[in-house]
Amino acid sequence: MKVDGKHYRTIWVKPDNQHVIQTIDQRWLPHRFVIENLETVEQAACAIREMHVRGAPLIGVTAAYGMYLAALASCDESEPAFLLALQNAGQLLRSTRPTAVNLAWAVERQLEALTAAGGDVKACIQSTFDVAAATADEDVESCRLIGEHGLDLIKNLSQKKGGESVNILTHCNAGWLACVDHGTATAPIYLAHEAGLPVHVWVDETRPRNQGARMTAWELGQHGVAHTVVADNVGGHLMQHGLVDMVITGSDRTLYTGDVANKIGTYLKALAAYDNDVPFYVALPSSTFDWEHRDGVAQIPIEERDASEVKTIRGLSEGEIRSVLLTPEESPAANFAFDVTPARLVTALITERGMCPASEQGVLGLFPERSAGKA
Amino acid sequence: MKVDGKHYRTIWVKPDNQHVIQTIDQRWLPHRFVIENLETVEQAACAIREMHVRGAPLIGVTAAYGMYLAALASCDESEPAFLLALQNAGQLLRSTRPTAVNLAWAVERQLEALTAAGGDVKACIQSTFDVAAATADEDVESCRLIGEHGLDLIKNLSQKKGGESVNILTHCNAGWLACVDHGTATAPIYLAHEAGLPVHVWVDETRPRNQGARMTAWELGQHGVAHTVVADNVGGHLMQHGLVDMVITGSDRTLYTGDVANKIGTYLKALAAYDNDVPFYVALPSSTFDWEHRDGVAQIPIEERDASEVKTIRGLSEGEIRSVLLTPEESPAANFAFDVTPARLVTALITERGMCPASEQGVLGLFPERSAGKA
Repeated sequence: MKVDGKHYRTIWVKPDNQHVIQTIDQRWLPHRFVIENLETVEQAACAIREMHVRGAPLIGVTAAYGMYLAALASCDESEPAFLLALQNAGQLLRSTRPTAVNLAWAVERQLEALTAAGGDVKACIQSTFDVAAATADEDVESCRLIGEHGLDLIKNLSQKKGGESVNILTHCNAGWLACVDHGTATAPIYLAHEAGLPVHVWVDETRPRNQGARMTAWELGQHGVAHTVVADNVGGHLMQHGLVDMVITGSDRTLYTGDVANKIGTYLKALAAYDNDVPFYVALPSSTFDWEHRDGVAQIPIEERDASEVKTIRGLSEGEIRSVLLTPEESPAANFAFDVTPARLVTALITERGMCPASEQGVLGLFPERSAGKA
Repeated sequence: MKVDGKHYRTIWVKPDNQHVIQTIDQRWLPHRFVIENLETVEQAACAIREMHVRGAPLIGVTAAYGMYLAALASCDESEPAFLLALQNAGQLLRSTRPTAVNLAWAVERQLEALTAAGGDVKACIQSTFDVAAATADEDVESCRLIGEHGLDLIKNLSQKKGGESVNILTHCNAGWLACVDHGTATAPIYLAHEAGLPVHVWVDETRPRNQGARMTAWELGQHGVAHTVVADNVGGHLMQHGLVDMVITGSDRTLYTGDVANKIGTYLKALAAYDNDVPFYVALPSSTFDWEHRDGVAQIPIEERDASEVKTIRGLSEGEIRSVLLTPEESPAANFAFDVTPARLVTALITERGMCPASEQGVLGLFPERSAGKA
């Protein structure tokens, strides 16, 4: 999407040097637009762990390129040493963040392709490059298709409201910054905007890391989409007063039973939507599905991050980005990064294949090739 | 309660000068402990409007002392001019914040007492002082009694858990800093702590003004009560995992039908408590009841505050308190200060007279003298 009028993806190969991957270091948004070079798998792992890049789809693509960087670094090794190095790289990348399923999926895909490449080191390196590029391109196409399917929902609401602006609440950033382009939750919004349908987005701040206030607000603003930032506490009040026509979020992991792990606080918005008859949609590429587990609350590991992310926050003060302490120095803080929204609260899932109910039957109906494994 | 081991109330008459009221300027907590002198009704109104003092009970007491300061300033006026000045002072104080009902209640109480004082200016001044002092003392006693009644709930949970620590989630600050002493939601917690029952408090940060992270964490810490600060998004996840035994909040206005207006985000926690069978209690002195309106969502005016409170936040950086910008400069923000929790989500109300169901029958059962007016 556009930044200062120029089109960007969130991750790309450096135009003049195919051995360098470039990303946007999102820690500095919205105050600075910083491009970061990734030249080693360790740097890719650090970018994921320290959240220079974030969002389940983008984490997956970054991991895929991380495997390519690991392959480049081992180009002079023997075949067994090369394969061992790639196994280790996969291990390193997988260990960076526990909740998003795309990470493991992308690493697995690279390792499987290596087997197919037959062990020749040069062919393997090319394979890791091709798989990473395909992972990125497929994500772009998935997001575009999610946008097409979700657009119908906005069109219907717009018609119902006689062309009045459709109010959409979103939590965290499931925008193009979380993916490679378009975004998941934002894809239908961007398409509606481009189709001339008036839309207005309520942007949940999304403490502690403020992905909404920092990134969603920024990318919507850059693209000219009307939006208003609200504290995470506000969504229920808005829905009680008819100020939200639909909720749409992304997902870090969605079970084939319909349970959705997403940024902490998503569950609270889903409860409020349910209580006020507001439809609650989750947009995700199928790479975000977990085909193994059945019970989200019981089975999805929830990442705990450092207390400092709760106790302090970064922002712009007199032209400098500073971190300020919000709590008493001595007070402990807990920092759970995700929660699970039970399927019963989700109106529908929007995937690249179309929409489906958030249920085993619904999901397997859209992905029948997965049914065999479940029988 | 204790600050650095010394006992404080939140508002008091300056020991060596009865014409000056002193309060804690809470905008600087937890980083600085600043005492502010109030010498005019305008200063009292500013302290309320700009939230140097906040919390429904403390706002009421500050307004009562504001009326006393207005009376002092008009001591040389004729009787009619004096009474007009006091009417105007009441108007000014009432206009500062629209949601808390204690404010109007305290002003009304002062004006009624003036009528009883018979119009003599000197007697009227004494009356405003006496009423303000009584309002403060009664609030302390109400909070103490709320603590006694709520303590039984914690005792029961503690017994059920075989003496294991009872986990209590609270939102915003309904602590002693919101009252004159003890607090409403915190009163049972302080009593439990003093009785040697192990308790642990999950402190909701409470964006945008962070009354939880700043004040509740600070006052619990000063008093030695175990606590953990969490982002407002976290409560639902904690409840899904059995990490919350009860929720207790204060209230800015509670209808006699049981609907509760409280800090924005309270409704979301009530929904999560309901969804997870966690009891949800609201603690309030009876001065917080609204005996007129029946439907909270439709009828309680919700204050909208400045967008800057959402877009920026203050904290400590390198020894200085700084405000940092969190959002893109151009992004708009909305700032609703309260929401309404419908009675159906409230397990019980805890008042100075005891506990009751959050229903018309429950409330009027505890306050039968109010039944006449409703018949």
